[in-house]
Amino acid sequence: MASKKRNVIVGQSGGPTSVINSSLAGVYKNAIERGFDKVYGMLHGVQGLLDEQYVDMSTQIHSDLDIELLKRTPSAFLGSCRYKLPEIHENMEIYDRIFEILDKLEIDSFIYIGGNDSMDTIRKLSDYAIVKGHKQKFLGVPKTIDNDLALTDHTPGFGSAAKYIAASTKEVIRDALGLTYKKEMITVMEIMGRNAGWLTGAAALAKTEECEGPDLIYLPEIAFDVDDFLAKVKELLQKKSSIVIAVSEGIKLADGRYVCELSGGGDYVDAFGHKQLQGTAAYLAGFLGAEIGCKTRSVEFSTLQRSASHMASRVDIEEAFMVGGAAVKAADEGYNGNMVVIDRVSDDPYMSSAGIYDVHRIANEEKLVPREWVNKEGNYVTKDFIDYVKPLIQGDYQPIMVNGLPRHLVLDMKKK
Amino acid sequence: MASKKRNVIVGQSGGPTSVINSSLAGVYKNAIERGFDKVYGMLHGVQGLLDEQYVDMSTQIHSDLDIELLKRTPSAFLGSCRYKLPEIHENMEIYDRIFEILDKLEIDSFIYIGGNDSMDTIRKLSDYAIVKGHKQKFLGVPKTIDNDLALTDHTPGFGSAAKYIAASTKEVIRDALGLTYKKEMITVMEIMGRNAGWLTGAAALAKTEECEGPDLIYLPEIAFDVDDFLAKVKELLQKKSSIVIAVSEGIKLADGRYVCELSGGGDYVDAFGHKQLQGTAAYLAGFLGAEIGCKTRSVEFSTLQRSASHMASRVDIEEAFMVGGAAVKAADEGYNGNMVVIDRVSDDPYMSSAGIYDVHRIANEEKLVPREWVNKEGNYVTKDFIDYVKPLIQGDYQPIMVNGLPRHLVLDMKKK
Repeated sequence: MASKKRNVIVGQSGGPTSVINSSLAGVYKNAIERGFDKVYGMLHGVQGLLDEQYVDMSTQIHSDLDIELLKRTPSAFLGSCRYKLPEIHENMEIYDRIFEILDKLEIDSFIYIGGNDSMDTIRKLSDYAIVKGHKQKFLGVPKTIDNDLALTDHTPGFGSAAKYIAASTKEVIRDALGLTYKKEMITVMEIMGRNAGWLTGAAALAKTEECEGPDLIYLPEIAFDVDDFLAKVKELLQKKSSIVIAVSEGIKLADGRYVCELSGGGDYVDAFGHKQLQGTAAYLAGFLGAEIGCKTRSVEFSTLQRSASHMASRVDIEEAFMVGGAAVKAADEGYNGNMVVIDRVSDDPYMSSAGIYDVHRIANEEKLVPREWVNKEGNYVTKDFIDYVKPLIQGDYQPIMVNGLPRHLVLDMKKK
Repeated sequence: MASKKRNVIVGQSGGPTSVINSSLAGVYKNAIERGFDKVYGMLHGVQGLLDEQYVDMSTQIHSDLDIELLKRTPSAFLGSCRYKLPEIHENMEIYDRIFEILDKLEIDSFIYIGGNDSMDTIRKLSDYAIVKGHKQKFLGVPKTIDNDLALTDHTPGFGSAAKYIAASTKEVIRDALGLTYKKEMITVMEIMGRNAGWLTGAAALAKTEECEGPDLIYLPEIAFDVDDFLAKVKELLQKKSSIVIAVSEGIKLADGRYVCELSGGGDYVDAFGHKQLQGTAAYLAGFLGAEIGCKTRSVEFSTLQRSASHMASRVDIEEAFMVGGAAVKAADEGYNGNMVVIDRVSDDPYMSSAGIYDVHRIANEEKLVPREWVNKEGNYVTKDFIDYVKPLIQGDYQPIMVNGLPRHLVLDMKKK
């Protein structure tokens, strides 16, 4: 047993964020510092691992500068996947195959960075390991811009997306104000978060000393009423000429239909016979333009809000790094079947630390914005919401610029 | 005459940019340094001036820090307008009204920051002044993200929008690569520039040592062929699983129809009976999804590309500041009816200086991307194009961050 290696394998799963690679950097750096022999990266998560797609991270990271670049690189350096393991009793072969590969690579600790589905993977693999007597430890590291994971105060990735949304909202509001003299204009911004309104609510942070912030904010947690909406916009237009509205991509009518589905109310077939659906903001901008007769426009933050690492929050990048390292520490100390979480120690000054929870308590719960953090009319977030998010967008991590553009660290398979 | 004041008035017109306020800062600072008595800002350009809407800039700028904030503030600080003066013979009263206001304010120099229409305003006002014996001088300062002004090497505003587009394209490409394992995904990005493809072509700058850049780029100067496009995408999918495509919002078919009009080929009426039109990228993403059957998505850089001052180019901000100052210098030296332009002195190392052109030679010509700067197939820009744009995105102007967000300088009418 003296020659047995102590290796770590780490993977990334689910939708990318600006800081998921900072967690990867935290895993790598902590594992090296703790004397683990090798750190492997699974390519495209468990799905790639099943195809024996992995890389020795020491072939990819050669210096502390590489670590810094990795912390500033958006999306999943190792590639992501959306792959849900079957229940153990449904397909044991897949589990045996995974453990065969882990044994071959002499893995001691398996770290998975992801959202709810990834924590489900950690739960199943740790359960299987215990039942079958495998010695590997399985630890989860949270990530999701949506901030909808339970038990952790917030998720890495959320703060940076919130910061990008707030900064871009300020810029959009300025743009709109410059253009409205003796004429009205309505801007509808569409923000990610199908079921949880954390990101859409973050548009409220644009309200600062020199910016009045968006006028209306609609979260997916609250049923959207088209008539109320129209009346509210008309009322605001009595007082001001530029209206800026933030809506979640997932806002729904009381009957459960998504607002974007309303655009399909007619016979939506294009010149080539394909059915087409519009986005929520584009639809609402068109709707308001037709009803009110003024200029309207829509802005979708789309993929940009989860990949704009050039606008990442320092708090977010450092917490993402911290939870990556904390997972390795926990594994090294013998924890298994746990997720690292972020505990808020203090609001002001803001302080946080890493905590540990059993994944059986965490998996597949969705944390929504509490009703009391939205105003009575359902069209803005409250001070409590803003106080919760504000610390998470603080501080910057200046991009490392090369020839005028942010430099990223990217996988080089020739070095594998 | 000893008590006669020597004042400057400055206005902003047309679509805002990230750096149009840096030109305003250049005008203000240079005018103060040259001993002009006051600098007035017209609110919402000539349109506001006609309503006697203006502000004494010394009530708004109190320190060098305010100048630095102004250089980093997107959109038009003074408010913009889209107002075209009538021909002189059509409505002399408007001209008399303007000169009455200018005389009242003891204006010596009138500086207008804008695009083609603004240079047309400068031409008309300087012609009228000469004919009527008014002593004011009229100078134009170029701006437009579209880079479609003739005679100037490029326009302030273009470099920063190009930098934002290139940086965001790198981030979108990373996001896409992280998500494509054993499945294909096509991303279509829509970029501003109705007739001129300068900004769309700038997506090619994302091609760097560690990023392969977009796969296809379609400019509005070249007729778009849907069949060729589909065939080319299918061909690329044989070789790679993530395809990223940049299209101008203004691409047109050979018969002159905009591509986005194809989305209206069916009976496009929403649930409330309104006709709705989709964007170009959303339409093409839907089209490719239906034809090929793989996942597609669209990203519109929309307003963000012209207002993202947090990603502005240092070269652009400094040139915008320079041409603002150069306009005041020119007026001070007796020039009238001229536009300041940017002359490229050297490519490598990049050097530029301000030049002066007669606005009669400039107004209302549209500078398009030359055919020889697009490849033969019409789906990418050439090295000449890239060499032209690259110097313009260099260097950064770090935002001044307050509570985690970029701080702007905004008009305070209480101080008027």
